[in-house]
Parts: sequence; structure tokens; C-alpha cells
Amino acid sequence: MKRRAGLAYDERMGVMQKVIKLSKRLQILLALAILTVCGAPIVAAQSRIDIVKVHSPGLERNLLGDPADQTVAVYLPDTYQREPQRHFATVYLLHGFADTPVEGVAKIMQEHMDKLLATHRIEPMIVVAPNGLNRFLGSFYVNSEVTGNWEDYIAHDLVAYVDAHYRTLASRESRGISGHSMGGYGALMIGFKHPDVFAYIYAMSPCCTVLEADIGPANAVWSRREQVRTADELPFLLDKDFMLPVTIAMSAAFAPDRDHPPLFGKPAFVPNGKHLAPDPVVLPKFQANIVASAVPRLLSGIFKLKGIYIDYGAEDEFSHIPIGAQALSSILSQSGVPHVLEVYEGNHSSRVRERIETSLLPWFSSRLRR
Amino acid sequence: MKRRAGLAYDERMGVMQKVIKLSKRLQILLALAILTVCGAPIVAAQSRIDIVKVHSPGLERNLLGDPADQTVAVYLPDTYQREPQRHFATVYLLHGFADTPVEGVAKIMQEHMDKLLATHRIEPMIVVAPNGLNRFLGSFYVNSEVTGNWEDYIAHDLVAYVDAHYRTLASRESRGISGHSMGGYGALMIGFKHPDVFAYIYAMSPCCTVLEADIGPANAVWSRREQVRTADELPFLLDKDFMLPVTIAMSAAFAPDRDHPPLFGKPAFVPNGKHLAPDPVVLPKFQANIVASAVPRLLSGIFKLKGIYIDYGAEDEFSHIPIGAQALSSILSQSGVPHVLEVYEGNHSSRVRERIETSLLPWFSSRLRR
Amino acid sequence: MKRRAGLAYDERMGVMQKVIKLSKRLQILLALAILTVCGAPIVAAQSRIDIVKVHSPGLERNLLGDPADQTVAVYLPDTYQREPQRHFATVYLLHGFADTPVEGVAKIMQEHMDKLLATHRIEPMIVVAPNGLNRFLGSFYVNSEVTGNWEDYIAHDLVAYVDAHYRTLASRESRGISGHSMGGYGALMIGFKHPDVFAYIYAMSPCCTVLEADIGPANAVWSRREQVRTADELPFLLDKDFMLPVTIAMSAAFAPDRDHPPLFGKPAFVPNGKHLAPDPVVLPKFQANIVASAVPRLLSGIFKLKGIYIDYGAEDEFSHIPIGAQALSSILSQSGVPHVLEVYEGNHSSRVRERIETSLLPWFSSRLRR
Amino acid sequence: MKRRAGLAYDERMGVMQKVIKLSKRLQILLALAILTVCGAPIVAAQSRIDIVKVHSPGLERNLLGDPADQTVAVYLPDTYQREPQRHFATVYLLHGFADTPVEGVAKIMQEHMDKLLATHRIEPMIVVAPNGLNRFLGSFYVNSEVTGNWEDYIAHDLVAYVDAHYRTLASRESRGISGHSMGGYGALMIGFKHPDVFAYIYAMSPCCTVLEADIGPANAVWSRREQVRTADELPFLLDKDFMLPVTIAMSAAFAPDRDHPPLFGKPAFVPNGKHLAPDPVVLPKFQANIVASAVPRLLSGIFKLKGIYIDYGAEDEFSHIPIGAQALSSILSQSGVPHVLEVYEGNHSSRVRERIETSLLPWFSSRLRR
Repeated sequence: MKRRAGLAYDERMGVMQKVIKLSKRLQILLALAILTVCGAPIVAAQSRIDIVKVHSPGLERNLLGDPADQTVAVYLPDTYQREPQRHFATVYLLHGFADTPVEGVAKIMQEHMDKLLATHRIEPMIVVAPNGLNRFLGSFYVNSEVTGNWEDYIAHDLVAYVDAHYRTLASRESRGISGHSMGGYGALMIGFKHPDVFAYIYAMSPCCTVLEADIGPANAVWSRREQVRTADELPFLLDKDFMLPVTIAMSAAFAPDRDHPPLFGKPAFVPNGKHLAPDPVVLPKFQANIVASAVPRLLSGIFKLKGIYIDYGAEDEFSHIPIGAQALSSILSQSGVPHVLEVYEGNHSSRVRERIETSLLPWFSSRLRR
Repeated sequence: MKRRAGLAYDERMGVMQKVIKLSKRLQILLALAILTVCGAPIVAAQSRIDIVKVHSPGLERNLLGDPADQTVAVYLPDTYQREPQRHFATVYLLHGFADTPVEGVAKIMQEHMDKLLATHRIEPMIVVAPNGLNRFLGSFYVNSEVTGNWEDYIAHDLVAYVDAHYRTLASRESRGISGHSMGGYGALMIGFKHPDVFAYIYAMSPCCTVLEADIGPANAVWSRREQVRTADELPFLLDKDFMLPVTIAMSAAFAPDRDHPPLFGKPAFVPNGKHLAPDPVVLPKFQANIVASAVPRLLSGIFKLKGIYIDYGAEDEFSHIPIGAQALSSILSQSGVPHVLEVYEGNHSSRVRERIETSLLPWFSSRLRR
Repeated sequence: MKRRAGLAYDERMGVMQKVIKLSKRLQILLALAILTVCGAPIVAAQSRIDIVKVHSPGLERNLLGDPADQTVAVYLPDTYQREPQRHFATVYLLHGFADTPVEGVAKIMQEHMDKLLATHRIEPMIVVAPNGLNRFLGSFYVNSEVTGNWEDYIAHDLVAYVDAHYRTLASRESRGISGHSMGGYGALMIGFKHPDVFAYIYAMSPCCTVLEADIGPANAVWSRREQVRTADELPFLLDKDFMLPVTIAMSAAFAPDRDHPPLFGKPAFVPNGKHLAPDPVVLPKFQANIVASAVPRLLSGIFKLKGIYIDYGAEDEFSHIPIGAQALSSILSQSGVPHVLEVYEGNHSSRVRERIETSLLPWFSSRLRR
Repeated sequence: MKRRAGLAYDERMGVMQKVIKLSKRLQILLALAILTVCGAPIVAAQSRIDIVKVHSPGLERNLLGDPADQTVAVYLPDTYQREPQRHFATVYLLHGFADTPVEGVAKIMQEHMDKLLATHRIEPMIVVAPNGLNRFLGSFYVNSEVTGNWEDYIAHDLVAYVDAHYRTLASRESRGISGHSMGGYGALMIGFKHPDVFAYIYAMSPCCTVLEADIGPANAVWSRREQVRTADELPFLLDKDFMLPVTIAMSAAFAPDRDHPPLFGKPAFVPNGKHLAPDPVVLPKFQANIVASAVPRLLSGIFKLKGIYIDYGAEDEFSHIPIGAQALSSILSQSGVPHVLEVYEGNHSSRVRERIETSLLPWFSSRLRR
């Protein structure tokens, strides 16, 4: 979840096109700048971003009209070009709810990776930034009969594509999965379920770790979904009532309901007289997707992981995130699962980029097998 | 904290006068009704509410201009009149933030007490409902160099007054303290600090048990206090931005600052770049007043208590209240302090009256010494 | 779990026979005593204990050689005899690990029930005390391919038998399930899974709510199971190393292993170099049976319950019990499940009988439909 | 707390003398070995350990007869000799209960520091390992009118001595405090109280973070102190009943009682009928020294710290340590205090040396100002 102004869905797609062009132009300008500064006669090998489309059979019949061909940005370090025989470890980075489109994420990655590589603080790695936005602004990277099978897409189709098209080190020890907010959630859940694919998880300010505080019954947002007529309204709600699209998207992901367009999901909490109370049928479907609740069920997979890092800002404005990260650490600890929990000064988004550069990427670099 | 429409301070005082008159008229009507129904030739003894003023030296020099003579409602059961030699156990009931003035609270008490007594479900008891509203809509019942010494007022002056003017059983085993929300907070803190005065505590949905969730740094309300020019604006904010007057009143109570009118208090969390962070000097002053944090320091007193009951609605819309009640139960349990924690279906205010009748009053009745 | 001297299995059975005879003799003596005291010409109707055998198909093929016909004590209040048309609510009471055989439990129940009924503090109810001891001293009341289907036995066979042979009110609202320690565990898990059978749960000092502290990897007992050659040794270990038979019985119940006699179970924690670490395959099987971990999965059933009461002594010598009861209350609260948690001064067994009389039975009496 | 065979107090002192001589002999042998291997004509600068005595006025009048001149080991990296103008950051390392005497700790440090420096994984630092053993086998590094003012000794006298006698960077940003178990406890409490002296804390498996589980009322050890006649027996109990000397030493440190020799302390939990219950007067004295309980009171100091790292093994056999580390992280998080919590696979002592080398020393090296 990243509080950002929303764009209508199609407009965003338009913006994406511009971003791609811009990024290419930037690369040329950058190359020229390097030429000027370094006085190098030949354009040195440099890092590259590929924007590709990856097909996923499991997304084909989603009810939201989202494409089964999803945009993915792939960052390739300069070494990738310079050493054509070499294979590389891969970091998958999942973005947040209503977040910057992947091209933007990729540019951020490029900036940080290039800087870290230039100063020799990390080893060269491939970074893959898939799209996780859907018509509801967030897929939560789960399988849902309404929104499609995003978990399968990431863990199977995307990894298969990347391994097939790039010189990766195609083993779990050389793959890490990470993300911020909804992306941190996705990293945890996909990592917990697919330790055979990803051996390392880095979850930044992961959401949906508990169903309390700002996403619990205390938040009257659960009773406002009636106000939304069509999915097209969701982007316009981001500024005014951010948690409304969030809970609508969560509902379609965690408790899909094929029979009730246009929101196609059931809320966890429903009016009961004057207050909100859990829906006894729906709450268990949510809890099955809530990280701390899911851990006991997923333990045998979790034990296969080789590293788990969770961080968050102590002042996160989504109040369930600190509470949930603590609860997750506690249940992991009780279960004997090694992990690191870092609490830093900051809020939900104030230091994400800095954390990617100073913590997430170096952590993967020092652990992924190469 | 009770979400109610606010009235400007002086207006409320006006309303109070009306309530008093109304209540007297109601009593006469009620007496007539009873006469009619029962055909009794003489007005039978019936329960009574006294509205009195109690002076507190510790409130004299508060900076908010609140009176040192505070309104108190005293409920006397019909037995009190019928048995002039008998002494009674006493329940003190503290109201919530921006709550109904004491006359209203007293009427509610009268209704419930009369009903319970008529059906022989409880023993006759005196119930005392003091005012805890100040110019900032809530004193939090603490001693503060800005708002005055409300804790002293309740634990010393009020109890002394009641024992002097009414036939009470003037011992700790015969006194209980209780309240809802801010009043539940007051009951816990005053009870913990004065077990020599009150042996039993019943805290309904107590606030301020932890400084997290909706009263933690996640709530941007801490940065909005600048918007308030004078205390007179606070009542008008209750509907629009309820937590703003709450946090302003908390600040004046927990971290008073004589030098900075008109709000005279320091917030626990302050802007730090783009986010809110704890103020290292102020946060400890708050934590000294936050129930779960204060328990270790107050343990020797807490052990003297003979009964502690804490309840809350699972769907409380103030998200720190369930979290804090759980944290409080946990620290009490770790410390070996017997208590009951009840979680009921409901939100912050949906079942307060019912709980008073079916749980709070019967609990005190079965425990207070008579 | 109740710390008691163990008897060898067959010896215990012998003792049981004596207890039955003794109890009958006691009843006669008691009848005579009443006659003497009251000078009543006719033996008044009095409460009765039936010791019966109930067959369970699901216990037939257990690997421990435990009988499929299980002993059950049924307490019938004097009213049962006096009012032959009347039907009664029923409380099921499950005993603890290595606990008193059911006849003893029944006598305790009789004493408390008679006393409560004589003083009009409760309504007449039937109390059913089934055996839950197996060759390993505790079945944990779960279905296991090694120890047999004890959950099915209690929830189906036993309830069917009682409803068929006694004048019960045969509906969920008139049935409660309760127990102490291992029995409190059984009450919670069976109640959570069978809300259509039991609408009310009272769990006294329930065990196995978390897999931490004294039943976590900190307890070297998990590495001592090698010392046990046959099940016959288990009773002799109760005094010396109580947790060893407990963890052995838990393993056979939660992680049964048909292929490895004589203990037929897998431990949750296994030596890993010099320390104990969770077994990645076994721990999830345990966690599926650990109450706090199982709650998210069982929520839809839990919501159907009409009352849950959990208590424990703050000084319980089984350190996971206070910690686990708090964790259970917290997850129930987060999920919006109403319940009461009471912490009293005492340890695991110091006040069990008193609590049955002053809390458990009155609670059921005031709630079960009649 | 480190489970090791105990030596009688005076014997240990004898052993210490031997260790000192041995270590000197080892250094000579090592030097010769280096000469042989390297063929260097002159002994190259190498790391050095000084064993010194530091006087503390606050230890003078302790009632246990412990010396006011305490042994301290100071590790000086080879660079210290080679660069005589250079000043160095300093790490203070506090050992555990009944742990290896400081000479042993120092040798371990030397081994790890030399290795890390040789492989350029850290910057050169001074490491100071003071003694924290007293006649009761553990001072817990607190001020006590019985055991003496160990906190003052460490934070004032020792730091003053080291700064006066060695080329340190004498500022808080260049000083870190750390330790294992009882030493981790000391590092946290001294660091929290003296952020003007130490800006960084690394606590390994800190003890006494909560007063639950194995150090709570569940542990009957609290009732066994009567069995101990003199302090001389304590070392002999380490193997048989390790927690008995631990709780005796804690009592003398946290709840000193000058009037009751020979143990001079009050236990937190005392027999109450058949069970153990908190002593209402003593428990608060303990809680004032229990880390998680003390945090709210110490927050203004804690906020001044620049880094806090806490780790523990998930399978720690002292069950309060995982539980307490989680509780500490939670209260720090609630208070907005940045920190890292790492849970690793291992128990209380299985990986301490490895962790010092791979985590503690590199963490300080990358943070302490130089």
C-alpha cells in the first residue's frame, strides 16, 4: 500500500508507455553523460532494463478483464552484457497497492543497483519487477477465482520465463523474493508456499500480517463498500478514502464471490446492528490469507527457507503493520523459524528507497548463491 | 471516549441545568405514576438522585478555568430512605470523554439500579457519578499542573465528601471504582494507585492502555493540533475529527506545559520530516500514564486489590482498546494479578448500558462488603 | 495434566473396581446418614452416579490395546429421579492427563453438584465424566491413527449414548463441554470443531494452547523419549519426569506414527547437534492440534458457539498454560470471538475443585437452555 | 547464564591465575610460531591482551566480600601498537552468569578479533571484557546495597579507566556495550540508562527481559532457596539445579536485603499454601529491573541510543529468553525505538562464539564512529 494519487486504469497504461519511452531517452542521455565524464571512446557496457510481457494461463479467465499477458521489468547489470557466459542470481521485487507501475519500479531499481555496483557494495544480480496491479489496484499476488491466479503467475510462469530468457542461476538458493507493503505480503506468502522456488524472502513493511487495527472491525471502511458502483471509481478514492479500494481489492482476492459483480468479493466484517462484526463464513477465508494466521499451516514449507528478513517503520501510518510484523515474528520464533525483524525510524513510505539500497539489495547480495 | 455530538462548553452547562430540572420533573411524574399504579396512599420510598457540588483544593489553580466545585450525582436506593440506620457499599462510576454530563449518567444509573433492585438481582448500593469533563472535554482523571489534580479530587475529596454526607460503609472492601472508556482508564489508574480507598475495579472498554494503533504515531491526528486556536473549538471537532480533541486533552493531562497556551500540553508524537515520530522527552511522560506501561511501577498497590474486571467489545472502533486490554491482561497475568477479561460482541458504545446492568452492577453487588 | 502418582495401567483398573464398590458403599452410608440426620421415614430421592460402558467404533483399532468400550460416569441430580418427565441440560467434563479415573471425578462432581443444588445456587443438570486415559495416560481427546478416534468418541458416540439412555435436552444449547488441563484442551478443540453438538465451552487451565515454554524446544524432555522402552514404564515416570509421558502421549496423539512401536509417535523437537530444533515435518502436525494455532482454521465453527470461558491460575507450574491462555484470548479477540478469560491466584491444581463449584458449574447453569 | 560446571569461588580465582600465565605463555608460543611460519626477523606487532585491575568505590562496601578491585581484560588490536597516534572505538563485552572468567572471554575475543582483522572484515577496535562474577556467581551488573554498585562500576569507573589508560575515541558514538545472557541483560540496562556513555547496544540472548516461564512462578526453584546454607554451596549447584544459584543471585541484585545473611536477598515468588505466588512487596523491585517492564520508565534515555541489536536462538533452553526478547521488541516498537531482533537456529550457548564473530563484532565495526 502506497498512498499515491490514483489514475484511472487506462490512463495509467498510457502513462506506462510514456515512462518506457522516457526511460529509453534517459538511458541515452545517461550514456552520453558517462561518455562526457569519462571521456571513454566507446559506450561502456551498462545496465539495462527490459520491459517484457509474460503470459500466464492462470490469469486468463479472471473476471476483472485484466490481461493474461502481464508487464514485467527486468534489470540486467552491466556485467550481464560484459560477461556473456556468466549466470546471475535473481531478486524478484513486488510492488505495493496502487503503486508505481513496474517501469517506475524498475527505474528505481536501476538507480540503486547501478549505484551499489559502482561502489562495489553488492554483487551483480538480475532484478525482476512484475506488475501486481489489477483493475482493483492490487492483486495481493494470490490465487483467486475472481482476480486470477497471481500466485501461480509469479511462482511458476514468471520464474519459468525469466529462467528461460535470461542467464539466471536457476536454483532456489539463487532466487530471492521481496516487496513492499502488498508486495511484502506477496513475498512472504509466495515464499512460504514455494520454498522450492525462492530460498530467501525480504518483506518490507508487509501488509495483511494480522487482521486488526486499521484493517480490523474498528475501521468503518468495511461498511462503505456499498458506496462504490464500479471498479472505475476505485482510483479516484485513493486520496479520499485509501482503505476503501484496499479492502475491496482484498475482498476480491481473499474471499472471491463470482456471483456478485462488480466488486466480486465478500467483506470480512459486516454491519451487525450499529457496529461491524466478523462474518463467520468470510472471516476464515480472510484468515487463511493473513500471514500470521497462515504460518502454522505452512510451517513445513517455511522451514525450507534459508533466510527471512522483515522490516517496517515504527511510525507506519497503517497501524496493523507494526502490530502484525511483531505478531509474525512471535509466531515464527515460537515455531523455531530463524528470521530478522528490523524496526527503523520512519513511516510506511518515507524510507523505502533508502532501505532497498542499504538493506534489501545488500542482504540478498550477501546471501544468494552465485 | 464516546462519540457524541459536542456542545460548546457553556451551552452544555446550560443543558445540564435543564437536565436537572427535567429529572426532577420526571421524578415527580414517576412518583405519580407509581401512586396511580400501586394505588398506594402514601408515596412509597423510592430511589433518589442528589446533584451536589464537591470542592477540591487540588482543582483550584487549574489553568483551564474549570471550577474547583465539581458537580456530582449520587444515587441512593429506596432502601436508603426506608432503613435510616443502614450503611451501604458505594460504586463510583466515571464517564467517558465528551460524555453525557453526570446528571444524564445518574439517570441511567437510576434506571438500571432500580430495575435490578426491583427484580432482586443486586443488593442496594450507593452509586456516585462525578463529573470528569473539563474545558478540554476530558480530564482523564489524572493530576496535571495544567488541568488540576483530578486524581486527588476523586480519590480523596470526593470519597471524603460522600463518606461524610451519606451513610456509606466507609472501607475499601465496600468501595468500587468503575467507568467507561476514559472513565475505565480513570478507574484502573485511580484504583491501582489507591487500593486503600477502592478494593474493586471494573473497567469498561478502558482507553489509554497502550499508546498504539489509533492513538499511536500511525494517527496523523497528532500533527493536526496546530489547527486548533482555542479550547472553544474542541466541542465542534467531535463530529468531524473526534481524536483531535481527545489527543489534545490527553496531552494537557499527561504532558502538561504551563507555558504554551491555549492547549497547554505536549503531543507524544511530532512531525519528523514527512512522518510522525515520538518526542523523546514527551513520550515517557505519556507512558507513565499509559496503563499497561504503568503496571510494573504500581504493582505493590495493585496486589492489594481484591477484584479487577476489564471488558470491551471485540469490534471497538478505537483500535487501541482491544489491543491494550489484551496487553494489560497479559502484564497483569505475568505479574500474578488475578483479574477477569471479558470480550463481548459489540463496539465501543453499542452495549454500554446493557453491560452496566447485566455485568458491572451485579459484579460489584456480589463482591462489595456489606 | 495433573501431577499425581502414577499407577501401572492394570493396577489402576483394579483400583477403579475398588473405587466403584467404595462409592456404592459410601452412597449407602450417606443415605443412612441422611436418614439419621433428617429423621426422614423414607429415603429421599438423591443424586446418583451411573458407571457405564460406552462403545466407540472409532476406538476399535487403536494400536495401544485400549478398549473400545470406555468407562463413563453419569451424574444424575436428585430431581432426575423425583421428576420422571423432566429433561435436563448436560455438562460434559473431561479430566486431565494421568488424572483420577472417572469414578473419582464423578464423586467430586457429585459432592459439588449436590452441595450447589442443596443451596439452590444452580439448576439441576446431568454431568457426564468420560474416561480419556489411554495406555499412554492421556488421549488428548483427539483422533489419531495410533491411539484411536477419541474426538469422534466424545462428540458422537458418547453424546448419542447419553441422549439415548438419559432424559437429556438433546440440543446444542443445552450441552456444555468442559475439562481441566488436557481436559480443558479437549473441551476447546472438540467444542471448536463441534459447535453443532456443544454450544458452550468452559476450559480450566487448558494445556497445549501454544507449543512454547515448558512444552517447547527449551524443554530437554523431548530428547529423553529414547529412555522409555515400553508404555508400561510411563506411569512410573510421573513423579520423576512428568513431562516425559506427557510429551510421549502428545506425540502419539498429534503426530502418530504407526510404524514405530512402542511409542508410535513423532516428537515435535529433535536433537540438532547440541540443541533441540523443530522437526520440519512433525511440527506442522503438532501445530494443527495446538489451540491458538488452530483457531484461524476453525473460525467458522467457533463463531457458532454461544459461550467460551477460559481460566487458569497465575502461578501455574506448567509455564505454557498462562502464556497460551493469553495467546488464545488474543487470537479470539482479534477474530471477534466473545469469551471470558479469568486469571485467578493459584497454580495448576490448587483450586480446581473450588473453581468447579464456584465458577464452572454456576456458569453452565446460568447459560445452558432448560 | 551459561551452563557450565562451577568451581568453588577461591578455586576459580586460582584457575584465573593459571589462565593468565597460560595466556602469556600462549602468546609467546604464538609469537614463536609466527616467527617460524613467517620467517620474520622481528616479532611483528600483534594483538595484545592486558589483564588489569580497576578499582570501583561503589563496590567497596558490598556485603559479599567481593573485591573493589576488579579484573578486566583489554584486547588491543595489532594496529594499536603499529599506529601509536591512533585512537580506537571500544566494545565492552559482559559475560554471563557463572561464565568463563574474563581471561577466558578475552582469549575468545582475541581469537575472533584477530581472525576478523586478518581477513579485513572489521576495523580495528579495542574490546574490554570486565568481570561480572561475584560471590553469588553473577552481579547482573546492577547497583545493589548488598552486592555493590556494579552498574556504576561499568558505566563510570571502568569506562573512565579505559579512556584514561588507552587511546580510545572517548565519545558515546565510539563506544558499544554488549554481552551474552546475564551480560546481554547488563548491556541493555546499562545502555538504556547511560546513552551518554554508550551509543550502541548488542544484546545476545539477554536474560531477565520478562519474569515469566522458567524464571516465573511456574519454576519451583523459588521455593528451594532454603536449601542453601552458604554462598559457598552455589558453585556446586550449577550442574544439579542451575536456576537455584541464578535466582539467588538475582534476588541479592534486584531485591537486596541487608538484614538476612547469608543470601541477602528476597525472592520474587513465595509459597502461598501449596503454590508459589508473587510477593507483593518484592515483585515490584524485581520488575523495576526486568528489561521489558523498565522500558517505559527509561524511554527518554533509550531514544538517545543510535543502535540496538538483540538476538537469541529459537531453541534457547531458558524459556523466558525467546518470550522476553519478543516482548522487549514489541514494547520498543510500540515506543518507536528502532532496533533489530534476530532469531537464529540454536540454543542458549550453541552458537555464541560464532555469533560474536559473524554478527556482533562486524555490527559494531560498521557503526562505531572512528
